Amino acid sequence: MKKYDVIIIGGGPAGYRAAESLAALKKKVCIVEFSDLRIGGTCLNEGCIPVKAMIESARLFQKMKNCSEFGIESGGIKMDMAAVRKASSAKMDILRTALYSSLKRQGIDFNFGSASFVSENRIKIDSQDAEAESFIIASGSLPSKLKITGADIAMDSTGILEKGFSGNKLLVAGGGYIGCEFASLYRAFGCEVTVVETLSSLAAMEDDDISRALEREFKKKGIKIITGASLKSLSGKKGKISVSVDKQGALIEEEFDGVLSAVGRRARTEDLNAKASGIELLPSGAVKTDDFMRTNVPNIYAAGDVIDSPMLAHTAYREGSIAARAIAGITTRGINYASVPRIVFSFPQIGAIGITEKAAASKGIKTNALKSFFAANAKAVIAGETEGFLKIISSEPDGVIVGAAAVGGEACELIHLLAPAVARGMKVSEAKEVMYGHPTLSEIVSDTLAKAVI
Amino acid sequence: MKKYDVIIIGGGPAGYRAAESLAALKKKVCIVEFSDLRIGGTCLNEGCIPVKAMIESARLFQKMKNCSEFGIESGGIKMDMAAVRKASSAKMDILRTALYSSLKRQGIDFNFGSASFVSENRIKIDSQDAEAESFIIASGSLPSKLKITGADIAMDSTGILEKGFSGNKLLVAGGGYIGCEFASLYRAFGCEVTVVETLSSLAAMEDDDISRALEREFKKKGIKIITGASLKSLSGKKGKISVSVDKQGALIEEEFDGVLSAVGRRARTEDLNAKASGIELLPSGAVKTDDFMRTNVPNIYAAGDVIDSPMLAHTAYREGSIAARAIAGITTRGINYASVPRIVFSFPQIGAIGITEKAAASKGIKTNALKSFFAANAKAVIAGETEGFLKIISSEPDGVIVGAAAVGGEACELIHLLAPAVARGMKVSEAKEVMYGHPTLSEIVSDTLAKAVI
Repeated sequence: MKKYDVIIIGGGPAGYRAAESLAALKKKVCIVEFSDLRIGGTCLNEGCIPVKAMIESARLFQKMKNCSEFGIESGGIKMDMAAVRKASSAKMDILRTALYSSLKRQGIDFNFGSASFVSENRIKIDSQDAEAESFIIASGSLPSKLKITGADIAMDSTGILEKGFSGNKLLVAGGGYIGCEFASLYRAFGCEVTVVETLSSLAAMEDDDISRALEREFKKKGIKIITGASLKSLSGKKGKISVSVDKQGALIEEEFDGVLSAVGRRARTEDLNAKASGIELLPSGAVKTDDFMRTNVPNIYAAGDVIDSPMLAHTAYREGSIAARAIAGITTRGINYASVPRIVFSFPQIGAIGITEKAAASKGIKTNALKSFFAANAKAVIAGETEGFLKIISSEPDGVIVGAAAVGGEACELIHLLAPAVARGMKVSEAKEVMYGHPTLSEIVSDTLAKAVI
Repeated sequence: MKKYDVIIIGGGPAGYRAAESLAALKKKVCIVEFSDLRIGGTCLNEGCIPVKAMIESARLFQKMKNCSEFGIESGGIKMDMAAVRKASSAKMDILRTALYSSLKRQGIDFNFGSASFVSENRIKIDSQDAEAESFIIASGSLPSKLKITGADIAMDSTGILEKGFSGNKLLVAGGGYIGCEFASLYRAFGCEVTVVETLSSLAAMEDDDISRALEREFKKKGIKIITGASLKSLSGKKGKISVSVDKQGALIEEEFDGVLSAVGRRARTEDLNAKASGIELLPSGAVKTDDFMRTNVPNIYAAGDVIDSPMLAHTAYREGSIAARAIAGITTRGINYASVPRIVFSFPQIGAIGITEKAAASKGIKTNALKSFFAANAKAVIAGETEGFLKIISSEPDGVIVGAAAVGGEACELIHLLAPAVARGMKVSEAKEVMYGHPTLSEIVSDTLAKAVI
């Protein structure tokens, strides 16, 4: 029987980052994953990477359509959805192959198959048993299902990425991260897109000014938005689906070629035979952990989407790395979710970090917000991407930067300029001393801070 | 006679930023500039903005040539140099008009003409006199001339931006910021470009690994590089210039259609009649100032390219703002050039901040450098821009981040992610706590810091 220091169930961001850390600490590590085509997890295979790769194509296409503004001529420009999917697959292959060989080079072992616990020290991988002193459960998540009549007719993010959508009229159920990204993408592909969201705005985790800017740009691009409304039922079959939506009591009935369910994700624990290990699950099915990724069973840890934390690759990395160090007995700080970047690769992009104004208000924290628009940024004018703004939020009266949010061209990158300030509680007066080069988009940070009355 | 609280000579970044600060402090301010077409100074009219605008076109063109990698089809793509220049002009006009009306809205007065001192309180603007309690000299800089036989046949950056270059074979004399940017630009326009540099590498202010990466990419793109060599003489006439280059004693003779002199810039003080004001000039012609932009004459200040400091728009902004606050009697910190970003918009871009490894070594400071390559960054793979790397330099043994440098796709933006760390002396162990979103280019910062053995 195979014996390891640590067996990691799942080869996504939490799992492979933990494996890397443990390998560096000379532990004998094995990753269990369904197949070599699943290495990299949801992120690489059916999440961040394919979506962002296709969005990158759509963004280039958009810029190419305006190329005369840059002094460039071009004959008929055409974005072919099949070719974009193929290009995205090629990039996934590059990244998956690079990741796999890098992990192998680090001495990390792989076992392909489905893992389930036999005891707290033993698992079965398909029919083979394996033992380890410690385990990290990083089995990830699955798309949640719509809880309405006819839910099975809807696609989920995994399905639409795998099989594509060849119809024209698409309903996106859910206006969070995933819904906004897919709505942007399929609109860029030329589909008629409608987004239905239960809450009163899209990207409702952010402040209203961000959501409003997003919705304005969505509408400009021809995306139809129905907020404060819930899906009642789906009927018919793929290619011709009748959708019934309840908008504050009024019923809207419309036909769509496809419905994409983007109503969140849930922890994937049902195949783990968790009972045999003795670990405690939350009612949601997620594995219960503390700040050091420890479960109630001393030698079993969990990290990534499978625990009750923001389902993001970058939190998974951090959790994986903390779990690895905890196993190796290295003292670290526990996980801190206060300065996790929130990034949405829609058109326009949203980037945010730290607390929102509304969350601060609800906690009774007094804040001040400084705001600058990209239209006043020279590089944004040069790049022809002038929509949107950056907002920097400080607590008052101490002037500590507690949050920031941006909407527009490069928001997903630019928000990280505020990450050190938010993470380390830098004051506005201190951050003002930092110099930014001209002409860059980054300069919007100093332009925004310059508005502070100090 | 017109009387002001403050007269500012020059409407470039130093001048207009000072004017804005003074106007906010309720001072009666006037900017003297040659004409309304010169508002924004060298940066907007013959420096950063037109160069970066054209480079943005070239960058888009490059991406469009590879669009099939993104699943996009396009008929004959053509970049037309005249159209690019026109597009760049249009953006300059937008920015100049926006700046002018913003300054007017802030109550700032303008006088157009050439300024020269009559006394320390009075200047002549063409033939009209004007008085002020304080002055800020922000008259900027001019391209330096080659000091060789036939130098007059060469163009300088102002000339080539104004008139363009319609030949094919271009020699760029000087491999610093300006030389590298123009070499990249005209190569992208399809010209045969050769760069001659006296020092042993291009971008010689940076560490060798950065210069080598730049040179490698330049050569891949077909730019010819001759380092450790100096121009001896030019002869002939425009369109057919014989160039003689001395490469360590060996003479190289070649014919070019044009020669661009990119051998730096010098302070523009010759028309100021500085003597009448009593201010002291350095032998270079620059105005002598202290850390608060004060000259030796109590009511006269100077800022921007005209003083002896890095000739960059972003240092000019800072200097202008410090001068304004000094005039208003507001206590500020003096200027600190230790964390000024150095950005070169060549292909590939260079971004750097703080100290280089070689400068540290020459000062006896022990450093450690962490390095990550863009080829290992998921977003860079998605964007198809995988060349280059980021390097983070810390002093040892205290682990304080003292510098950083990047070469590659978005280096000019990304370098600012390290700006707070360098400006505030953050430790590697502290910076490691900052979280970056996936998949972003910004993530390369955490990937680089993760390599630290702590």
